Amino acid sequence: MPIREEFRHLEPYGAPQLDVPVALNVNENPYPPSERVVADIAHAVAQAAAGLNRYPDREFLDLRADLAAYLYRESGAILRPEQLWAANGSNEVMLHILQAFGGPGRRALSFAPTYSMYPEYARDTHTEWIVGRREGDFTLDRSKALAAISRHRPSVVLLASPNNPTGTALPIDLIEAIAARTAELGSVLVVDEAYGEFRREGTPSATTLLPSYPNLAVARTMSKAFALAGARLGYLAASNDLINALRVVRLPYHLSAVTQAVARAALRHSEELLSRVGQLRQERDETVHWLHSQGLQAVDSDANFVLFGTFRQRHAVWQSLLDDGVLIRETGPDGWLRVSIGTAAEMAAFKAALEKVLKASER
Amino acid sequence: MPIREEFRHLEPYGAPQLDVPVALNVNENPYPPSERVVADIAHAVAQAAAGLNRYPDREFLDLRADLAAYLYRESGAILRPEQLWAANGSNEVMLHILQAFGGPGRRALSFAPTYSMYPEYARDTHTEWIVGRREGDFTLDRSKALAAISRHRPSVVLLASPNNPTGTALPIDLIEAIAARTAELGSVLVVDEAYGEFRREGTPSATTLLPSYPNLAVARTMSKAFALAGARLGYLAASNDLINALRVVRLPYHLSAVTQAVARAALRHSEELLSRVGQLRQERDETVHWLHSQGLQAVDSDANFVLFGTFRQRHAVWQSLLDDGVLIRETGPDGWLRVSIGTAAEMAAFKAALEKVLKASER
Repeated sequence: MPIREEFRHLEPYGAPQLDVPVALNVNENPYPPSERVVADIAHAVAQAAAGLNRYPDREFLDLRADLAAYLYRESGAILRPEQLWAANGSNEVMLHILQAFGGPGRRALSFAPTYSMYPEYARDTHTEWIVGRREGDFTLDRSKALAAISRHRPSVVLLASPNNPTGTALPIDLIEAIAARTAELGSVLVVDEAYGEFRREGTPSATTLLPSYPNLAVARTMSKAFALAGARLGYLAASNDLINALRVVRLPYHLSAVTQAVARAALRHSEELLSRVGQLRQERDETVHWLHSQGLQAVDSDANFVLFGTFRQRHAVWQSLLDDGVLIRETGPDGWLRVSIGTAAEMAAFKAALEKVLKASER
Repeated sequence: MPIREEFRHLEPYGAPQLDVPVALNVNENPYPPSERVVADIAHAVAQAAAGLNRYPDREFLDLRADLAAYLYRESGAILRPEQLWAANGSNEVMLHILQAFGGPGRRALSFAPTYSMYPEYARDTHTEWIVGRREGDFTLDRSKALAAISRHRPSVVLLASPNNPTGTALPIDLIEAIAARTAELGSVLVVDEAYGEFRREGTPSATTLLPSYPNLAVARTMSKAFALAGARLGYLAASNDLINALRVVRLPYHLSAVTQAVARAALRHSEELLSRVGQLRQERDETVHWLHSQGLQAVDSDANFVLFGTFRQRHAVWQSLLDDGVLIRETGPDGWLRVSIGTAAEMAAFKAALEKVLKASER
């Protein structure tokens, strides 16, 4: 097969999909939609299905209006429908960004440790991938970050806030400083708020910066807080000009009539779907506290997961937990592990399994 | 905005989405799914929705098995589930092909006039686009085609059969000759059978060549014969090795749990959904006959559309039809127009509108 050299011998990206009692590995929301929401989704799909012989609305402005209205409720951002964009998961939104603004002869920059898909988006679009570093506590140093951006002149800067896998949110004034610097350089700044709804009180969303920075894009997803990972709906808010560039590179009809109907039905129930966010935040903070009480490091998190460690042999710890039916993620810097926040019962199973490991072995 | 130079000033791809009484412009199937099919789709989605907080099955082997079973029924091809691939429309399947096997420093080749998205897939993946020519009657000359392939050594050859916008199917021995030549050159051959189900009796599908050519991929879609354009399900059959290359470049979880459920429900009803194919073929052949009777050229078609002409001012003809509420497509070589095959009533409206134009003006 004449597969490109850079893809040869690679394994497809993705965490193991194992059938286990307690799955805490891909930052899913553990609470399935209620029967009421399921019924409304099915009803919306039935309506859409009656016209499935026709192509879907290529511009999906109704869904984009619903997303704008949701962001207003969630973070106070005032956006026109034309300022929203959506695709099959925030993966595809990010691919559109790198297709339009990255590509051969251009650079994208982020700061590690961060989301492991970013270099894949760069690879898939032949964008040179530049990686700066976060500090030891996973925060970002303002002057170092600005210096790296000025030095490398990337056409796209990617900042995850809250960051994956560390859970760290960036201060809004730091994001604004980077937005200003990228604007001077003619670059696009993407703030990835996939876990935005889990941020702690008093942390503003980067969507509030959109009116001042036409080069800023704020990505979100319905996979996490919305508990809709299976529906694959990622989206992004930005200036009209930025969105228009994405419209050129998207495949026509990329968002099915069914996906549009499911997302709109879910948005009608956003209050109910998001009702577990508070509980998950509380469980998260409690988990950090418990990990500390076990003598472990655990990073304060604005997301629905916690990075903890460190372990001399993290793979052995990961395997022991899996042997007890608890699947977490072996990711992040050496020695660290990441656990998604599940139900109280799932977290109890995680704690029991980890206690067993801690008792059995020297770290 | 730092949009790439090659995308600047481009309009997003796509035919106008106008609200007209008679839409015969994007080769949709005019028959919506029955209430029974709609109910089954909604039921399948309700089942999937109950677990939407979880990510979808990244490998979707159940859907791939159903697609393999369908291709066996439709064209006699014996395929393992691992030999099938699917994505959000055949657009995305083709993008995967060009990501894996095209890209910077590589070439893709097709023979014009052909599907207008092909150069866009090449552009989006920075693949050099080489275009050979079909003959005046839109067939492909065997020795010229083989010579072009040997000369340009493309890593991907794209053949639409039946071809869009001409409707022309390629003889299977010509496809086999090209499969053999591309195999010698280490290239991939994609036969795009988006309209395959509409082919005339006695035209074998290129899927029958799969056992002999591991470099061959045959693309299909549920958008046309299956009357499921709104669901966005394109697929492809090929060797296991070829599919494994696509698995590396796909975005993880690109196919939602809902899309998988809708496609599988539709496949359970394939007999009913495809029941109009015979009628549409008959209407198509009748349309060709009628166009001839009007003194026009019309290309014999193996698809659900007919290319006809020629007109000195095709845009004026297109506009006159639109003024009468009939939307067709201004595409193909200069002077030609394309009409999709609709219901008997829609074709009557098309004929009446066209007769009016023919009477009113010299061609």
